[in-house]
Amino acid sequence: MSAAIASAFSVAATAKARPFNFSPGPATLPLAVLEQAAAELTDWHGTGMSVMEMSHRGVHFEQIFEQTLADFRELMAIPDDYAVLFLQGGAVAENAIVPLNLMGRGVGADYVLTGHWSIRSAAEATRYGPVHVSAHNGLPLPPELTDIAANHNADAPAGAYLPDPAQWRLHEQSAYLHLCANETIGGVAFNDWSAVWPALPADLPVVADMSSEWLSRPIDVSRFGLLYGGAQKNIGPAGLTLVVIRRDLLGHAHAHCPSAFDYTQQADQHSMVNTPPTYAIYLAGLVFAWIKAQGGVNAMAARNQEKADWLYGAIDASAYYRNRVVPAARSRMNVPFTLPDAESTTRFLQEAQQVGLYNLKGHKAAGGIRASIYNAMPPEGVRALVDFMQDFERRHG
Amino acid sequence: MSAAIASAFSVAATAKARPFNFSPGPATLPLAVLEQAAAELTDWHGTGMSVMEMSHRGVHFEQIFEQTLADFRELMAIPDDYAVLFLQGGAVAENAIVPLNLMGRGVGADYVLTGHWSIRSAAEATRYGPVHVSAHNGLPLPPELTDIAANHNADAPAGAYLPDPAQWRLHEQSAYLHLCANETIGGVAFNDWSAVWPALPADLPVVADMSSEWLSRPIDVSRFGLLYGGAQKNIGPAGLTLVVIRRDLLGHAHAHCPSAFDYTQQADQHSMVNTPPTYAIYLAGLVFAWIKAQGGVNAMAARNQEKADWLYGAIDASAYYRNRVVPAARSRMNVPFTLPDAESTTRFLQEAQQVGLYNLKGHKAAGGIRASIYNAMPPEGVRALVDFMQDFERRHG
Repeated sequence: MSAAIASAFSVAATAKARPFNFSPGPATLPLAVLEQAAAELTDWHGTGMSVMEMSHRGVHFEQIFEQTLADFRELMAIPDDYAVLFLQGGAVAENAIVPLNLMGRGVGADYVLTGHWSIRSAAEATRYGPVHVSAHNGLPLPPELTDIAANHNADAPAGAYLPDPAQWRLHEQSAYLHLCANETIGGVAFNDWSAVWPALPADLPVVADMSSEWLSRPIDVSRFGLLYGGAQKNIGPAGLTLVVIRRDLLGHAHAHCPSAFDYTQQADQHSMVNTPPTYAIYLAGLVFAWIKAQGGVNAMAARNQEKADWLYGAIDASAYYRNRVVPAARSRMNVPFTLPDAESTTRFLQEAQQVGLYNLKGHKAAGGIRASIYNAMPPEGVRALVDFMQDFERRHG
Repeated sequence: MSAAIASAFSVAATAKARPFNFSPGPATLPLAVLEQAAAELTDWHGTGMSVMEMSHRGVHFEQIFEQTLADFRELMAIPDDYAVLFLQGGAVAENAIVPLNLMGRGVGADYVLTGHWSIRSAAEATRYGPVHVSAHNGLPLPPELTDIAANHNADAPAGAYLPDPAQWRLHEQSAYLHLCANETIGGVAFNDWSAVWPALPADLPVVADMSSEWLSRPIDVSRFGLLYGGAQKNIGPAGLTLVVIRRDLLGHAHAHCPSAFDYTQQADQHSMVNTPPTYAIYLAGLVFAWIKAQGGVNAMAARNQEKADWLYGAIDASAYYRNRVVPAARSRMNVPFTLPDAESTTRFLQEAQQVGLYNLKGHKAAGGIRASIYNAMPPEGVRALVDFMQDFERRHG
């Protein structure tokens, strides 16, 4: 066994032989959070009850809920004129629920398409009104997206860049403009929001899928109309959806919007129109407390940048590994890369698994390798991956 | 302290001073299940990962998912021509999702109203098509339910009986007939399905809200078109919704039905159109294994009947406590009862809490006391409650 592999093993051994789990979501959680959850699973704070046994309207869960909400607001610096909703169904459900709640405030909506998830969002939205493709980055589009902007940049590889905001085709009466902050499969992200804002009219609400981005770096919430996303990447277990909505956008739900997904009703009733996913909310609360203890979102951002820099640095320093995304649009959360051929890729995945580097297989639509390195992935995990990559290349490259 | 209260304490003490939690949902779970979940929370079966960290498409979670599904099918004796879906949003979301999926196969739908939850289901369904009130039991109805059957029985107290199936007003073209198997607030349940079937045409799909009833006694699934309900009463944590649907009812989703809630898409994709609530599914699997170890649904039914008989027996033997539901319609899962006045009720709740009998307060719409005694409530909990009730009456009655 090479020194690099032994090193990866010893890092894992110090953490009770815990592997490094690069799953895109559900994803690794901080070990300290899991250990606390295990310790209080049968008896929360001397109540004799598990959190999952508590009434969602009881005094104990109310305390957990209010603290979780307050910590999320503090970490994200959410202004008072925004409501925070704890819902269910994940971003896939929100692809319908957003237009069900917002489409009614205008005529159709604008979508910027930068990968698998924003294309899926737009396709789902066509059920609820006209969808205008404001911009895309060259990927094939499904037949229901017929109103297509032509301004993609044919000079860069399809799906590997962001369309220039100055060229986005906007529609005056659109209810909102939708984009995906981070494309988990393609590894393309809006890293520089300051390049986006000047191109947009102030009164056009920007809706962003934040599933992979939550709490990974500071953002100016006041520039967005609505943020949404699943918890299972940067926040907690699958089954919890977070929505942050500027309150003046409430009140436009379609008559067919189920009450449980009507933002206005949920904002009025503090996310308790239906029974919320109480245990997932508790776990999210533990993660928020952990982030605060780490130094907050700024500390997360610095650590995430360092982790991404190591990994992209290793890829770019090698002719064996390749990431096709233009540098300015590279995701700090999901790093897809390829090896020269399928045989090497298979061997890479097998050997990685053997040294405790799990779930590195790329999405089936993309192939290759994908390392998801959210907040809870320790720097040691990325170091172990980089060491393994360099060792693998020496032995097989 | 009286002997009865001391007895309640000593039962609690043998179970690590664990209180008996009579919450209507989220509700008590078997201690053995919680202890197993705690023991494997940070490391499931030597994988080094928590279940909540696992990819929903990975080999480990697939194993958990398939076993959970197989155990549920076995326990419920679900025929092969029914699909089982693991969704999100609870019964409140299903109140909309059911008509979004089924209303299109006919003209409107028939609803039987027997309490808070079936009235809420019907009101929500009016968003999606004509709702006919086939029968009700005398409770006030909201203004959107204007097509009202007049055949309620004015001789029994409103909300405290089941309308006679022979008098239900059925509509030939209705897409389905909806009822709530157990009204959690009113404590009214369809205990005898054999009284229902002869009144219904064979081709009218019966849709039942099973939230409080799941796995509490054997039912003949083949008589129903669709069963749905949240997990947080008899199955596991909040945030998981189960749907059992006869496959010939698939294929009628409204164009406005979100993909994540389209039964046909979810049946085709094995509940993975969106990321399912993986940890809640795992917990449900532990509960299913626990039910099997107890002797299955028949053993649960016998135990539940015995628990309910003790409690109703104590109520009926006393002039101090009162349950207003006609005996044939009394729920075995939720037992509401009253004391003579508000002061006694408040004192009862305070003293009960002190001896480890938690969450007995009735729903705000009903007042009084409510004891929810689902599968996971041990017989000792009901015995302790009965002892406490008798002692309380001796001291204060």
